[in-house]
Amino acid sequence: MTAAATIARILADPRFRDAVATMEREHDRTVADIVALTEIPSPPFAEERRAAAYLEMLRGHGLEEVEQDAIGNVMGRRRGSGNGQTVVVAAHLDTVFPAGTDVRVRREGTKLYAPGVGDDTRSLAVNLAFLRAMDAAGIRTRSDILFLGDVGEEGLGDLRGVRHFFLKGRHRDKVEAFFTVDSPDVDRIVTGGIGSKRYRVTFRGPGGHSFAAFGLVNPAYAMARAMLTLSALAAPDAPQTTHCASVMGGGTSVNAIPNEVWMEVDLRSQSAAELARLEAEFLAGVEAAAAAENAARSTREGAVVAEIRPIGDRPAGHTAPDAGIVQLATAAVAAHGFTPRHEYSSTDANIPMSLGIPAVKIGSGGRGGRGHSLEEWIDVEPVESLRGMSASLATILAVAGMEEA
Amino acid sequence: MTAAATIARILADPRFRDAVATMEREHDRTVADIVALTEIPSPPFAEERRAAAYLEMLRGHGLEEVEQDAIGNVMGRRRGSGNGQTVVVAAHLDTVFPAGTDVRVRREGTKLYAPGVGDDTRSLAVNLAFLRAMDAAGIRTRSDILFLGDVGEEGLGDLRGVRHFFLKGRHRDKVEAFFTVDSPDVDRIVTGGIGSKRYRVTFRGPGGHSFAAFGLVNPAYAMARAMLTLSALAAPDAPQTTHCASVMGGGTSVNAIPNEVWMEVDLRSQSAAELARLEAEFLAGVEAAAAAENAARSTREGAVVAEIRPIGDRPAGHTAPDAGIVQLATAAVAAHGFTPRHEYSSTDANIPMSLGIPAVKIGSGGRGGRGHSLEEWIDVEPVESLRGMSASLATILAVAGMEEA
Repeated sequence: MTAAATIARILADPRFRDAVATMEREHDRTVADIVALTEIPSPPFAEERRAAAYLEMLRGHGLEEVEQDAIGNVMGRRRGSGNGQTVVVAAHLDTVFPAGTDVRVRREGTKLYAPGVGDDTRSLAVNLAFLRAMDAAGIRTRSDILFLGDVGEEGLGDLRGVRHFFLKGRHRDKVEAFFTVDSPDVDRIVTGGIGSKRYRVTFRGPGGHSFAAFGLVNPAYAMARAMLTLSALAAPDAPQTTHCASVMGGGTSVNAIPNEVWMEVDLRSQSAAELARLEAEFLAGVEAAAAAENAARSTREGAVVAEIRPIGDRPAGHTAPDAGIVQLATAAVAAHGFTPRHEYSSTDANIPMSLGIPAVKIGSGGRGGRGHSLEEWIDVEPVESLRGMSASLATILAVAGMEEA
Repeated sequence: MTAAATIARILADPRFRDAVATMEREHDRTVADIVALTEIPSPPFAEERRAAAYLEMLRGHGLEEVEQDAIGNVMGRRRGSGNGQTVVVAAHLDTVFPAGTDVRVRREGTKLYAPGVGDDTRSLAVNLAFLRAMDAAGIRTRSDILFLGDVGEEGLGDLRGVRHFFLKGRHRDKVEAFFTVDSPDVDRIVTGGIGSKRYRVTFRGPGGHSFAAFGLVNPAYAMARAMLTLSALAAPDAPQTTHCASVMGGGTSVNAIPNEVWMEVDLRSQSAAELARLEAEFLAGVEAAAAAENAARSTREGAVVAEIRPIGDRPAGHTAPDAGIVQLATAAVAAHGFTPRHEYSSTDANIPMSLGIPAVKIGSGGRGGRGHSLEEWIDVEPVESLRGMSASLATILAVAGMEEA
């Protein structure tokens, strides 16, 4: 059966219609859950309170094996009829916003304004709505579905929640497919994970008086050389590959050769091989830059040394366009009147993609914008919201194998 | 009388020997003052705490007209027998080290390690020792001696303390000679003021997402190129000429092309002509670097533009080798068994030198090193320290006109 036919059959199934009707009936509850969860701050590396609240919600929805793992992820299982093969439906608990950010939700008509409301708090609530809808409609699946609220998706969190889940978690060998429900828009299906490597490089030298110690090595010149080397590294359009010297600082006084300067760099690629090539060239360039400075000026008081510290490492990966999960997501989105697009991005799905596990990012429905800004908003207008939720639920059920009535 | 004869007579005077004996007896107190003052942080533009402490010390030493002027300098007068003509004995209150630097003194044998301990904190304490020694020995001078703890000698302070003193201070018309006691070494008599030009250069560009906007111009690369151009500019040994990229910063997030980066540079020369040549080449290099970046990457969202802001301009100047103050300092240093050298540097003496007022930099005695670095140290071993202190005190008394008994 084609993906489109599979989706069509699900959409025509009275139980699926019943499930959507449940979501429609319970829409206010879903919105209330979005507000409640959004107003529990969940800064990077401090997701504990929201995780505890979500754990109780998962428990309250009757899941089995509700638990929190060692890294802080919370999860629970909806048993399938099969042998325990598992489809993960995840949303991330963390936001980009630091502790102290005002996370109260402001409502204007059908729009909700609050930091983190769309990325990714809405998805946490929507996944619960999926669960209630399946239960109310008596829908069973062949695969188990593991609902996951994971930590550390954003920024320096560096995907640590999902990384732990797949590298050390007890469910890792059973996962046959992975969805991250992340942000509202359902038309943008993320099928590729941009790999990234981030470094903070500190160049240290002896320092000294700008006049009296003139002629000594200057770590700023080593850094400048490393930057220019980076700027000239190959960055193909396909697979898309980029590099950037982003943030920098150092030195103490205008009349002193700096003791220490530093920079942060961001390296990315759609291709793991390209990223590895880029990383190797960058790291070699750093060492060569320090060596060039040590050759250009005096090291009698000490040489310039570069300290290279990784501050981010997200694996590249992708799910092939002809993989079932991509075909089914695409068909479900199209069947709901959207124009599906396949994109590369950096999401929780990077991890399973890098491990060869079928994975995509799908949407929580409705509209939204200004993610990662204090003006972040979503629209919970019911018709548009339910259209997107229906598309994502159909995708999940198709991949998990909705049982015949 | 020759300078050597004047110095010989002072050194032979029992009161001078008494003064030196006082300094010897009170050496531990001087060391304690060095430690106490060093451990009061005195970052650029934040000398208040140390100034207040030093003001109290000046007052405690019985000086007249103890006061703080509008710019923050503290001072007090030791009245002479003449008509109020004034010899200034200065040391600077500020260090190059920013707020938060650990300024605790670590002692190893006779060596004291701490940022700023030698440049110029030791001199503040030594000038008090001179004062106590003169008083204990009953030494009078023809000229008044104005003890000055001045602000803003270092870096962006741009000599603002002494500049204010000479351009706006109430004592400016009475000054017949100026000593800055700056750093330990007494053999290096600074008779010439290195001219300097300092700039803060800000490179601005459109910025953008490190991945999505890859290919746009990056102001960090323009800055890197400008730094490397600077590093390669000619810097002759004679007239001595130097350059340095000192302090830098910029960028906001590891995943963003920076909108703005900046650096501070220090250009110096003994020769006004060389300084002008260096400055012109540097400024041309900045423009060329921005142009090179605009040629290397896309300017479709905007080009890199360099904003060049002068932040320091210290006048060159010198005191002639045959000036009395130079002759007397040289004779005093030689009489103590040192080999006097005449040097150019950039010190508080630049200002009076540029105004034609006789001025030199003399030393606080003892040895020291690694000024302007976190490893700065001095040696307070008594014999060597007192030899230097005696030389500088003899110089001051000779210039101020030590009265006959």
